[in-house]
Amino acid sequence: MELLDKLNWRYAAKAMNGEVVAEDKVERILEAARLAATSSGLQPFEIFVVKSQEVKEKIRPIAWNQSVITDCSHLLVFAAWDTYTPERINYMFDLTNEIRGFENEGWENYRQMLLSSYPQRDSEENFNHAAKQAYIAFGHAIIAAAYEGVDATPVEGFDPVAVDEILGLREKGLRSAVLLPLGYRKEDEDWLVNLVKVRKPMKDLVTVI
Amino acid sequence: MELLDKLNWRYAAKAMNGEVVAEDKVERILEAARLAATSSGLQPFEIFVVKSQEVKEKIRPIAWNQSVITDCSHLLVFAAWDTYTPERINYMFDLTNEIRGFENEGWENYRQMLLSSYPQRDSEENFNHAAKQAYIAFGHAIIAAAYEGVDATPVEGFDPVAVDEILGLREKGLRSAVLLPLGYRKEDEDWLVNLVKVRKPMKDLVTVI
Repeated sequence: MELLDKLNWRYAAKAMNGEVVAEDKVERILEAARLAATSSGLQPFEIFVVKSQEVKEKIRPIAWNQSVITDCSHLLVFAAWDTYTPERINYMFDLTNEIRGFENEGWENYRQMLLSSYPQRDSEENFNHAAKQAYIAFGHAIIAAAYEGVDATPVEGFDPVAVDEILGLREKGLRSAVLLPLGYRKEDEDWLVNLVKVRKPMKDLVTVI
Repeated sequence: MELLDKLNWRYAAKAMNGEVVAEDKVERILEAARLAATSSGLQPFEIFVVKSQEVKEKIRPIAWNQSVITDCSHLLVFAAWDTYTPERINYMFDLTNEIRGFENEGWENYRQMLLSSYPQRDSEENFNHAAKQAYIAFGHAIIAAAYEGVDATPVEGFDPVAVDEILGLREKGLRSAVLLPLGYRKEDEDWLVNLVKVRKPMKDLVTVI
């Protein structure tokens, strides 16, 4: 399967060469993230595409000084909702009714069920739930980048509070979850590029019942 | 891009017809999950492939009685580590050294950094972190299923404590995170099959900086 070839091709580039990724490629990577399945279809996250070198320079020191932060072309910041609110839930249900052109009793009951449970939950629980949905989209973007021949380096090593501040995320009701620099590998400065990919053997991952 | 066609093809089938998915397809779907990127390469999860109808019947009542639980072919249960332990961290670092055939000072320092931080963290924080990694693999499995022409229905609506008990996960240091029934849609009983896919417009998802 071609998908497996793409997954074997990709790796987390540790050095990038500054080359700019074409906008149509970035758009398709974002579209893959947009199409990701999410719980109840709420898509509880936003994606910030940092092209500004000045902003990347601000983020690098609070991301373990990783060079890919500044040497990438586009730095994707996946930011999850800080909680579920009635407005956010209603937005997606209203959008669904608008796009599909009808209301449905079962769907409206489901809306009420979410409205009567999610906003009342602890916001940390809600953020964690939202962040997990963002990770599905994040994984989709990683695969889409591989299809585009674009390197993508998953980055969790950063100070989320500082990133939130730099991008003004808290005021928007968002919290940074994970970063994905997009760009092109700089092979001669990348210690990882020629090393064998390591994964658990299937026997340690999968149990059939 | 073909990937986008696959993502547009897929949807969360709400009824499945019981047809069995060929094992080679399931293997490639699991392989996509195995190849997923995870934080520090730890792959902090396992996947249980439930083929037993008896076990599926036990899970269905604690999963909102959703018919796809019993009418699917293979029910994938993504179970994340309940916490990070030195043994689990050392397993992946040792495996890496074994596969790559050498030790590296930077990598060993990184191992020590994880050993001195992850196991000491609150287990709920660790489980949440591990579950997010599982969601990357979960998203990969969803895409791989689409490439195989197999329907896959993301299911978060279940009682994780009950699933843990049915599968004996807690004794293994695991907690169920999310389910993915694999099978084939039963079009005449699926209310969702002919409805338009709804996603936020790009302008509400993406901000360029």
